[in-house]
Amino acid sequence: MTDFKQWEGFEGRIWKEEVNTRDFIQKNYTPYDGDESFLAGPTDATNKLWGALQKLQKAERAKGGVLDMETEVVSGLTAYGPGYIDPELKDLEKVVGLQTDKPLKRAFMPYGGIKMAEQACTTYGYQPSEKLHEIFTKYTRTHNQAVFDAYTPEMKKARHSHIVTGLPDTYGRGRIVGDYRRVALYGIDYLIKAKQNDFANCGDGTMTEEVVRQREEISMQISALKGMKEMAAAYGFDISQPAANAKEAVQWLYFGYLAAIKTQNGAAMSVGRVSTFLDIYIQRDLDNGTLTESEAQELIDHMVMKFRMVKFARIPSYNQLFSGDPVWATLEVGGIGMDGRSMVTKNDFRFLHTLENMGPAPEPNMTVLYSSALPKTFKDYASKISIDTSSVQYENDDVMKPVWGDDYSICCCVSATQTGKEMQFFGARANLAKCLLYAINGGVDEKLGEQVGPAYAPITAEYLDYGEVTAKYDVMMDWLAGLYVNILNLIQYMHDKYYYEAAEMALIDTDVRRTFATGIAGFSHVVDSLSAIKYAKVKCIRNEQGLVTDYEIEGDFPKYGNDDDRADDIAVELLRSFLEKIKRRHTYRNSEATTSILTITSNVVYGKATGAMPDGRKAYTPFAPGGNPSYGAETHGLLASLNSVAKLPYHWALDGISNTQTINPDALGHSEDERVTNLVQVMDGYFDQGAHHLNVNVFGVEKLLDAMEHPEKEEYANFTIRVSGYAVKFIDLTKEQQLDVIARTCHKVL
Amino acid sequence: MTDFKQWEGFEGRIWKEEVNTRDFIQKNYTPYDGDESFLAGPTDATNKLWGALQKLQKAERAKGGVLDMETEVVSGLTAYGPGYIDPELKDLEKVVGLQTDKPLKRAFMPYGGIKMAEQACTTYGYQPSEKLHEIFTKYTRTHNQAVFDAYTPEMKKARHSHIVTGLPDTYGRGRIVGDYRRVALYGIDYLIKAKQNDFANCGDGTMTEEVVRQREEISMQISALKGMKEMAAAYGFDISQPAANAKEAVQWLYFGYLAAIKTQNGAAMSVGRVSTFLDIYIQRDLDNGTLTESEAQELIDHMVMKFRMVKFARIPSYNQLFSGDPVWATLEVGGIGMDGRSMVTKNDFRFLHTLENMGPAPEPNMTVLYSSALPKTFKDYASKISIDTSSVQYENDDVMKPVWGDDYSICCCVSATQTGKEMQFFGARANLAKCLLYAINGGVDEKLGEQVGPAYAPITAEYLDYGEVTAKYDVMMDWLAGLYVNILNLIQYMHDKYYYEAAEMALIDTDVRRTFATGIAGFSHVVDSLSAIKYAKVKCIRNEQGLVTDYEIEGDFPKYGNDDDRADDIAVELLRSFLEKIKRRHTYRNSEATTSILTITSNVVYGKATGAMPDGRKAYTPFAPGGNPSYGAETHGLLASLNSVAKLPYHWALDGISNTQTINPDALGHSEDERVTNLVQVMDGYFDQGAHHLNVNVFGVEKLLDAMEHPEKEEYANFTIRVSGYAVKFIDLTKEQQLDVIARTCHKVL
Repeated sequence: MTDFKQWEGFEGRIWKEEVNTRDFIQKNYTPYDGDESFLAGPTDATNKLWGALQKLQKAERAKGGVLDMETEVVSGLTAYGPGYIDPELKDLEKVVGLQTDKPLKRAFMPYGGIKMAEQACTTYGYQPSEKLHEIFTKYTRTHNQAVFDAYTPEMKKARHSHIVTGLPDTYGRGRIVGDYRRVALYGIDYLIKAKQNDFANCGDGTMTEEVVRQREEISMQISALKGMKEMAAAYGFDISQPAANAKEAVQWLYFGYLAAIKTQNGAAMSVGRVSTFLDIYIQRDLDNGTLTESEAQELIDHMVMKFRMVKFARIPSYNQLFSGDPVWATLEVGGIGMDGRSMVTKNDFRFLHTLENMGPAPEPNMTVLYSSALPKTFKDYASKISIDTSSVQYENDDVMKPVWGDDYSICCCVSATQTGKEMQFFGARANLAKCLLYAINGGVDEKLGEQVGPAYAPITAEYLDYGEVTAKYDVMMDWLAGLYVNILNLIQYMHDKYYYEAAEMALIDTDVRRTFATGIAGFSHVVDSLSAIKYAKVKCIRNEQGLVTDYEIEGDFPKYGNDDDRADDIAVELLRSFLEKIKRRHTYRNSEATTSILTITSNVVYGKATGAMPDGRKAYTPFAPGGNPSYGAETHGLLASLNSVAKLPYHWALDGISNTQTINPDALGHSEDERVTNLVQVMDGYFDQGAHHLNVNVFGVEKLLDAMEHPEKEEYANFTIRVSGYAVKFIDLTKEQQLDVIARTCHKVL
Repeated sequence: MTDFKQWEGFEGRIWKEEVNTRDFIQKNYTPYDGDESFLAGPTDATNKLWGALQKLQKAERAKGGVLDMETEVVSGLTAYGPGYIDPELKDLEKVVGLQTDKPLKRAFMPYGGIKMAEQACTTYGYQPSEKLHEIFTKYTRTHNQAVFDAYTPEMKKARHSHIVTGLPDTYGRGRIVGDYRRVALYGIDYLIKAKQNDFANCGDGTMTEEVVRQREEISMQISALKGMKEMAAAYGFDISQPAANAKEAVQWLYFGYLAAIKTQNGAAMSVGRVSTFLDIYIQRDLDNGTLTESEAQELIDHMVMKFRMVKFARIPSYNQLFSGDPVWATLEVGGIGMDGRSMVTKNDFRFLHTLENMGPAPEPNMTVLYSSALPKTFKDYASKISIDTSSVQYENDDVMKPVWGDDYSICCCVSATQTGKEMQFFGARANLAKCLLYAINGGVDEKLGEQVGPAYAPITAEYLDYGEVTAKYDVMMDWLAGLYVNILNLIQYMHDKYYYEAAEMALIDTDVRRTFATGIAGFSHVVDSLSAIKYAKVKCIRNEQGLVTDYEIEGDFPKYGNDDDRADDIAVELLRSFLEKIKRRHTYRNSEATTSILTITSNVVYGKATGAMPDGRKAYTPFAPGGNPSYGAETHGLLASLNSVAKLPYHWALDGISNTQTINPDALGHSEDERVTNLVQVMDGYFDQGAHHLNVNVFGVEKLLDAMEHPEKEEYANFTIRVSGYAVKFIDLTKEQQLDVIARTCHKVL
């Protein structure tokens, strides 16, 4: 059994015998059920650094969204020497490490696709390097090049028509959460040794392709671990050994995460479940008197500041999909252990408290793993922070724990993965709304007027018949599911081949579980359309080409979002049907297929590409995001809306069901206490039904309108709102996105 | 049906409907059973160019073996503008195209391994480019890096001990013969169209890894075809359309081959079966009066000159294995069609005649596909050329045709592949002699004194018991076969991943047959050792470590190479046993496992690494090459020796059985006619028994001794000899190799 002096005072054996962070946490954490009164305010150092960073962020916004961009250096673990927020304040930084040599400077990351990397440069007025262009076109193949070389014409068409969108074929797939805590707990040398042992035990000698691939992957992981040591050494830290105290633990852990964001530019680069883990180190230092609460908070504040600085170079089409520069540095607090003990520690308060010490912010994507069984004090505090900052999302630990255990991390918005034991093949989403239109129009795209789907017989009747539509929809959805899964199979193969996540996978078990994430867009519009066809009369309006391009609805029909089973049953059936069609397909590396109802802000782009729907949604207008009911559909208040969404079985959408709601402060009550209590009650009721997720926004539409008109007002500089699956500074959204947010239902009554 | 005006006068339909060179040949070739009297001597242009090239070759030798080397440009289809043998004689070149910009200048080819590419530079005093070093270590992974990252310690040990040697893990695997004739017959555009059709028909939509890989491969092939057009355009030729006449056909075909040698540096880069094909074009031009015989010969001479110029940058350890700078530009003449017609054309004479017009030469590796049913005139002429030049090898068409059809090419020395329909995963050879010593010493290497093989119980008796030795040998060989196949599986996977042969595979059917070639070294020594143990008494001499390091043989025993079934039966059984152990393993891409008895000149290196054998072979002395009997073992004359080798069933060694013999001119007769007739008779008898291959050398040992002493003599400048599987200029061999050749049996009686 290994035993380091850095582990003095820690309990347990198994985590010393093998890499097992969960076991370490369970054996050593101190649940906390007190209130927030112990929390400390920001230190001078925090205020100064945060002030400096705020200035940089302002300058970034003034420069059109990008402060600085690399053009000559390819990002990598050791591509840069050390960098600091402000060289003059360097000694104040308790947690060091930047993606590049300068704060907010975006790295050059060509492996996902040189075209994208270069377009990101030129978009913001930077001239990409000719030398690197030559290297990444002539000598080094990129993921993007390979994927497009192998795509079928049908795949390109489906991509073009936006029936499938958001595919990670020009940048990193992301969504892989390394167990960054391992760096702190074990130090790099121990981790290298463990991977070397895996290498020695990889396969039985027969070199199948699977074994050869894995051997190469492990060897790349070991190289990445060595690179991390070098990277840390540039900042003056030797991370070969375990962290000896809280400060080192925070720093070591952050270096692990830094390794990920220096080498990959996935849409979602999540931090994971680090709070309870770090509390163990902090508590040990508090107990032995080597740390004060103020110093503890400072460590967390500084770490969070670093998560607020993560940036990637993106292109306009990406920004349209994922507006406001999100990176999904998702970080969890809360949750209940398998043994029933609350996993809330003082540190979970500290992380939420950063939203007070440094004000609201979209990153890290603060996520409460919710259960009505969490300590009341913690639920109340989270509720208060939500009401004050609209920067927190809630996910139901009670439904996730049976599937993923008590050490999962959220790897994007709503997608759980077992930390250090699992990776996800991310895969964007299929536009099921457009698919319904293809079913009606025999595979001809209603916007392009071209045959994109298979040329099945279109509907020729004037009025839509429910039986005919659902039968045709079933086969069209089957086509889409097949095409979609195969596009993803191709992308994931090439990603492994050309853009393997060595640094992240180095911090994940070699014997890794792989999920294959798919997703649904346009969910509510399909549900409401089918309901309209079933319960009202829907007349087809055809254009001169004979395509149905609009619908006239005669009579009323129940809509998803009102706790009406007639509509909600259709929703449940739609999810089941899609999942079945996904699951029966071959998936890359025998990964487990899952799905999500989650659009992020891509609901706008999807909507733009999709014609009018039988539910009355106008052509080319935004979809409702994620699992949300359609705008204006909810007529029975917040609770009825939540009840509808809660009916969707989480285990049919293990990649998550995103629900974003905005509540007028007055609807929650007339005092802070009343609001806090009511919000907790709303959430208890919602999650106890088995619902998965809730983005909580607490503000009125007036505030949004004012912020849109007067973005220069100081109060809006950090005004953060939760959109589908992440948080964003409202003033960073495009006008179009802002209007979309304003159009969403703001509940004035519960 | 496609029909080009360039095809005017050609018969047949099927080859117009699909890419099918064989069908074109069968429908259009003109068998020739006349003698060589029609042949034309060298033209002035030929003499001048050959003179210039001879000067360059002399300068190359004077400079230590390398005339010039690229360090700044990575080789590729379009890496260079046009190059010529001598810019001043440029207009004399009927066939143009160099690997680089200058004659005999070796290209920089890092994809197989940057270390090897750089070591090749420094070995000859060139400074490799720092920029390319950075690119191929930092950004672009190479085959070599990937293989070594994934190797097991056992594999590295086996490689180090030389129980497995010659693995293509630092350079290209070679042995893939593109159907270069397709470029001439169809032109590039037609070939692109056909590959695009394959791309469209690749898979049924389900993106398994196999399908994704193949889609990417086809897309790379199409890029390579486009690159070939560009490459040819630099020389002023548009090869998008079929060749219109003989001159274009020769040039187009050569461009196809040039594409291969610009992009790959495999040990063996063979030309294939081009003679009969080109005769069709020449005959059409002769018939319509647009070409004279002298011009026809000039075309072939100039093409052959180009094959004589192929060079790769190699490292010392490579040169030890494959001495004398061979490239196996193997080129076939002769053979019989499936319909029984001789495929000998006038062009087959022309190719052999190049050895007269320009003197003997090791390249192209001239190979006669032999059958006693070939026209007597052709057999006589080949025999005469052999006697005069020792530059020709013979392979038995009668045994190969039933397996590979009548359009196979030899892809190295003795390994047949169906032209344009097959590719080979090449894989060096296993040292079965050392394996026998491992069986005796319980897996401990007799030279290194280290445990390399599994620690099975060693033999402890003083005298070797045949039953015990064969039982132990069987399990040790099984270990070796398993390890060997898995090393190859790993190498082939990485080669496909990092160094795919897009240009060659572009000229091969997409639906390709794949063979998995293994090989045996030390064959005769195992046979004779087992015979000694069985028929004599073999006493073990152990060193202080207890390892058997020498043997004392008491009594006589039969040896392989004397037509004695007691020894030859052991040989047959050894081959069968090894093949079985290879075939039962998993092979990469479900390729068909074959084996060969073929060492090339690596017999010296293998021998150097292998201790004394129970047959009396001294420690660290050369093995007999390929399927040859051991030096000195043959005591019953040439025919008895040939009879022994002929007993090995070809279909158990489909990758070929190499046999190299040297015959004293006097043994063949006292006049040229007598020698020619006798040599033909020897070969008829040998091949009619089902033997596979014969390298024919006709000279006395005196000549070798004199050439070794006086390499400067003009007569030895091009003195070529056949070694195992290829030909080499004797003075280009190392002293050690020369002594090995001298030590071989030179038959003074038949």
